Amino acid sequence: MSGVIVTGPPKAEAKDVEALAGYGVATVHEAMGRTGLLPAHLRPIQQGTRVAGTAVTVLSWPGDNLMIHAAVEQCGEGDLLVVTTTSPSTDGMFGELFATALQQRGVRGLVINAGIRDTQELRDLGFPAWSAAVCAQGTVKATGGSVNVPVAIGGQVIRPGDVILADDDGVVVVPREKAAEAREAKEAATRAAFLQGQLGLDRYGLRDKLAQLGVTYTSYEDHARDGAAS
Amino acid sequence: MSGVIVTGPPKAEAKDVEALAGYGVATVHEAMGRTGLLPAHLRPIQQGTRVAGTAVTVLSWPGDNLMIHAAVEQCGEGDLLVVTTTSPSTDGMFGELFATALQQRGVRGLVINAGIRDTQELRDLGFPAWSAAVCAQGTVKATGGSVNVPVAIGGQVIRPGDVILADDDGVVVVPREKAAEAREAKEAATRAAFLQGQLGLDRYGLRDKLAQLGVTYTSYEDHARDGAAS
Amino acid sequence: MSGVIVTGPPKAEAKDVEALAGYGVATVHEAMGRTGLLPAHLRPIQQGTRVAGTAVTVLSWPGDNLMIHAAVEQCGEGDLLVVTTTSPSTDGMFGELFATALQQRGVRGLVINAGIRDTQELRDLGFPAWSAAVCAQGTVKATGGSVNVPVAIGGQVIRPGDVILADDDGVVVVPREKAAEAREAKEAATRAAFLQGQLGLDRYGLRDKLAQLGVTYTSYEDHARDGAAS
Amino acid sequence: MSGVIVTGPPKAEAKDVEALAGYGVATVHEAMGRTGLLPAHLRPIQQGTRVAGTAVTVLSWPGDNLMIHAAVEQCGEGDLLVVTTTSPSTDGMFGELFATALQQRGVRGLVINAGIRDTQELRDLGFPAWSAAVCAQGTVKATGGSVNVPVAIGGQVIRPGDVILADDDGVVVVPREKAAEAREAKEAATRAAFLQGQLGLDRYGLRDKLAQLGVTYTSYEDHARDGAAS
Amino acid sequence: MSGVIVTGPPKAEAKDVEALAGYGVATVHEAMGRTGLLPAHLRPIQQGTRVAGTAVTVLSWPGDNLMIHAAVEQCGEGDLLVVTTTSPSTDGMFGELFATALQQRGVRGLVINAGIRDTQELRDLGFPAWSAAVCAQGTVKATGGSVNVPVAIGGQVIRPGDVILADDDGVVVVPREKAAEAREAKEAATRAAFLQGQLGLDRYGLRDKLAQLGVTYTSYEDHARDGAAS
Amino acid sequence: MSGVIVTGPPKAEAKDVEALAGYGVATVHEAMGRTGLLPAHLRPIQQGTRVAGTAVTVLSWPGDNLMIHAAVEQCGEGDLLVVTTTSPSTDGMFGELFATALQQRGVRGLVINAGIRDTQELRDLGFPAWSAAVCAQGTVKATGGSVNVPVAIGGQVIRPGDVILADDDGVVVVPREKAAEAREAKEAATRAAFLQGQLGLDRYGLRDKLAQLGVTYTSYEDHARDGAAS
Repeated sequence: MSGVIVTGPPKAEAKDVEALAGYGVATVHEAMGRTGLLPAHLRPIQQGTRVAGTAVTVLSWPGDNLMIHAAVEQCGEGDLLVVTTTSPSTDGMFGELFATALQQRGVRGLVINAGIRDTQELRDLGFPAWSAAVCAQGTVKATGGSVNVPVAIGGQVIRPGDVILADDDGVVVVPREKAAEAREAKEAATRAAFLQGQLGLDRYGLRDKLAQLGVTYTSYEDHARDGAAS
Repeated sequence: MSGVIVTGPPKAEAKDVEALAGYGVATVHEAMGRTGLLPAHLRPIQQGTRVAGTAVTVLSWPGDNLMIHAAVEQCGEGDLLVVTTTSPSTDGMFGELFATALQQRGVRGLVINAGIRDTQELRDLGFPAWSAAVCAQGTVKATGGSVNVPVAIGGQVIRPGDVILADDDGVVVVPREKAAEAREAKEAATRAAFLQGQLGLDRYGLRDKLAQLGVTYTSYEDHARDGAAS
Repeated sequence: MSGVIVTGPPKAEAKDVEALAGYGVATVHEAMGRTGLLPAHLRPIQQGTRVAGTAVTVLSWPGDNLMIHAAVEQCGEGDLLVVTTTSPSTDGMFGELFATALQQRGVRGLVINAGIRDTQELRDLGFPAWSAAVCAQGTVKATGGSVNVPVAIGGQVIRPGDVILADDDGVVVVPREKAAEAREAKEAATRAAFLQGQLGLDRYGLRDKLAQLGVTYTSYEDHARDGAAS
Repeated sequence: MSGVIVTGPPKAEAKDVEALAGYGVATVHEAMGRTGLLPAHLRPIQQGTRVAGTAVTVLSWPGDNLMIHAAVEQCGEGDLLVVTTTSPSTDGMFGELFATALQQRGVRGLVINAGIRDTQELRDLGFPAWSAAVCAQGTVKATGGSVNVPVAIGGQVIRPGDVILADDDGVVVVPREKAAEAREAKEAATRAAFLQGQLGLDRYGLRDKLAQLGVTYTSYEDHARDGAAS
Repeated sequence: MSGVIVTGPPKAEAKDVEALAGYGVATVHEAMGRTGLLPAHLRPIQQGTRVAGTAVTVLSWPGDNLMIHAAVEQCGEGDLLVVTTTSPSTDGMFGELFATALQQRGVRGLVINAGIRDTQELRDLGFPAWSAAVCAQGTVKATGGSVNVPVAIGGQVIRPGDVILADDDGVVVVPREKAAEAREAKEAATRAAFLQGQLGLDRYGLRDKLAQLGVTYTSYEDHARDGAAS
Repeated sequence: MSGVIVTGPPKAEAKDVEALAGYGVATVHEAMGRTGLLPAHLRPIQQGTRVAGTAVTVLSWPGDNLMIHAAVEQCGEGDLLVVTTTSPSTDGMFGELFATALQQRGVRGLVINAGIRDTQELRDLGFPAWSAAVCAQGTVKATGGSVNVPVAIGGQVIRPGDVILADDDGVVVVPREKAAEAREAKEAATRAAFLQGQLGLDRYGLRDKLAQLGVTYTSYEDHARDGAAS
């Protein structure tokens, strides 16, 4: 597989990235019309961390981290490295040395659809990462690939310069052209109402919907009498 | 799928639930003759928490949390919400707003055979949860289902009002009619014996069993001479 | 399945085990020519712990912990228990009582290719464990097996007396005859170079390799003009 | 785990079972209000076979086929054996000898939430089976269990005497008290309409629904001009 | 999730599609520089069928086939329907009625990253399909989605009008702008050489490569003498 | 990873291999004391074929088939190729060209713990194969490995020259030093008895065992009266 390394892709504005870092992944995913979510098998190696950055993308051969070496040079302040492979792999393609090098360049973290290693060292460094696996298995540097081309993880396309937002709930991508719409305010209001004891059933007008759908209420005694309860 | 919302099911006694909360899931599972364990894919989003409550059950369409809205109204002090779907799904059907509403009503926690989101917020609230997945993917409110009917998760049936006990080892259900038999005391004695150096082999009389099963002892040297060791 | 319990197998030297405990799993795996790694589905129940010990191996029937009882007697100071089953199982074959007994005998920890329970109690005891699953499901004591025979987990053979090293990245086995070669020093040098801003591309001479592989550099503008970017 | 063998459970009427055998699993699942479907991991070992029978249920310890031996005696003309285990297992609990014995007694087939072996021999015998795995791994006869108690597979409860219908699409259970409503006729009409070129969009009145949901039509040219197509 | 139905997308030329149908998926994947392969979990429901068509794409809510109804109208001679969902689902979204309607319109087959049902009926109709699961579970028609927008399955983007080629080895997508380069002729020559007994080692000049990589030849006797064989 | 190619390993006798080919995998696995079974994820790409041969083993880098090229030269009449990788991979490492070359040399088939492609062509050639995946993804020829060293698949070690027996039930390995004990005759007798209506319960004396285990018989009516049936 030959490839290409694209230099100088357009990126989302730093102030927009900062703003997004103030919201959770679930909130931004909702605000984007429920698009952009990466698959649930990408899990954080740390707990309680939220980070946002502009994507530097890597398409790599499985079990081969040559293109991550090439990508380091393309990374700078505010970026977040996004790596995927041409076929599934759990090999540990990324570890402490890469994290040290990236942190020097101001990179915010890593999302990798493959394996990662040196996880305790990464937590000690404060370099956050989301991965498909944790595995000490090492890799070779033998096969070409690409940097800063559009890649797809699960059903989601990530282009270089797109915003990546990640926290304990997962990872979401926001295309670089779209500003995030805040939904936090609306949620805060809803939360306040809930604290006062109002039900979602009433707030969202769902009682009529239940009736339309043929969902009925029955007491346990009546239900048991009909023989359907156990 | 039309459905039914059953109101006022019978529940286990609060004092029995409290007593069970003093034991671990493994202990209660043993005391119940090794029945009632929910499958191992239900994992806690927190560590070191044990909780017991009476089940309010929800049978929901995948990717649709309409019936959780309906269930909130049926929940009260000492309950624990149990949600499953009619086919497998990892969508994040439950998050911070539901947890806030349920905590207001005295609900102890959540067991959901699907996805959950806002996990950091739930940990901050102190609302414990066990789920099949963590995923920020949102859901619709479009399809009917049922509340407080018997549901099955893995090979286990849970009826409304049954006791749910959950900790780091998993989740067990105790039918509302059955008092839990304590086994902790017996275990404590065994533990003391082990601390004094006694072997399970001797304490449980397993040496004879090994001999009956044809298991023999051999020294490494003899074993190697026979060519079976490497 | 009848079996055999082998007594007194040869073991790696204690001082070599201690030395290995000073390195990470990924480092030792590299130093061993990338051999000896156990599969990635073995995960720790704790975070931030590294341990090394000499293997006492158990080959057990699934859902049956009889042979772990037999193995306890074969364990001593500096050992680490390694358990696998003849067919896949997630049952919780090991819990607090075994850990208490083993800790009395100076055993360093557990690697089990099956389920484990009492996980919070094990963390409280400070007894580290790596397992394929966490599950409260109990087991019987009905079927024979073997202790201290070579066992295989994933694609890796473990013989009694081999060194087991485990940390947050996974588990590696080092044959008892082989001293571990240190690679930490070389890595430290590399790390220092990275901290001064040198790229792996330059340090490892990878730029020529990229060219040989047909990987080219192109600016985003040129790439977009060719219609391949989106 | 002690257990119980229940003799003489009530069964669905033979004529109702025969009638159901004339429909597909998908059709009956629809006619039952989309209930009763067993999970998709149960796959047939043959192709093109549909069978219906009354359930004789077995709850077994994993890796142990003692209770299948006990269940054979409870099986008779028109029955279909349903086996599940108390925790997951892929062991081959059922093979040619059981199939021969069951065929002598008029049993219609097997649904097993575990492993099966001698698959070619079963196909040669014409004894249909649906299983969670195919595996030659043998089992012991050491642990008790139950026959003809309600069991749950996935999220579905199966009681003795319930109707089991299985084909290439999977397995569905129909409670013994419920007659199946035919939906085949309605489908035949729909199929005829489709053959004449009518669209589901028109037949089901879905165009209005799309509009209500905010789904719009746009030409490719207009869509591309807006920059959303690639 | 609101959506859009794009009409009249550009499509690959019919003659190019026909030409591709003469090659296997593995051959075309190689000829495309090893790009375009969909993930291995998409499996055929039939054996020995190869089909090529132009993609009509559907992005659907899980468990909801509303947008497939909308897509039927957009399908015509030579098309192949490609369906994916916004989160993972095994529900049977597609069955005999859809296949009948599509066959009337000249559609070549289906690739669906979700479940399918009526599989025997589809085989009887001669309507080929590749799916992520087989499951009789029905779906609703409640949520909007899109037709003929770019979708991603695994790490692969599929645009409307791209060529889809599928056989027993899997599914590959060829962008509509790219003609397939034939590699069959070259393979035929290689095959002839192999039939005459030539080794790949010699034909591809791999002996030198093995030596460079440090791979050595040794006789079994010498290897055993060194203690490395068992 | 450097490696070694071992030439001229000892092999099981051809007449013993032929004899084993007359039995099924399940029978031989039983006759070997339930040892030697490879994991259930290895599935045949054909149906109704049984084959036995002497193992030529390959340990390969994932996504790299260089060592299969090296192994072809080591294969001869009566051999069966066994391939595994150093970390999990589904890439299609083996296809029609290899099968053609191996068939020329008298090789009986393939067992590969990775992916395979050209499956229809392999069936047409009559070259049987068992694999962990079917995937058209191609591979490189870049990294060294070993031929004819002991390899492990799942929990099973395979040495060069061992007998591999494979059929629809899976794959079993028999060490080259051990003759297979026939159990077919005994099974035939048992089968005859079953055909005459005798129960395994009586033949194996299991009724007493059930009683010892505390398993009781109860009529449905009595069971229902106790409230345990539903």
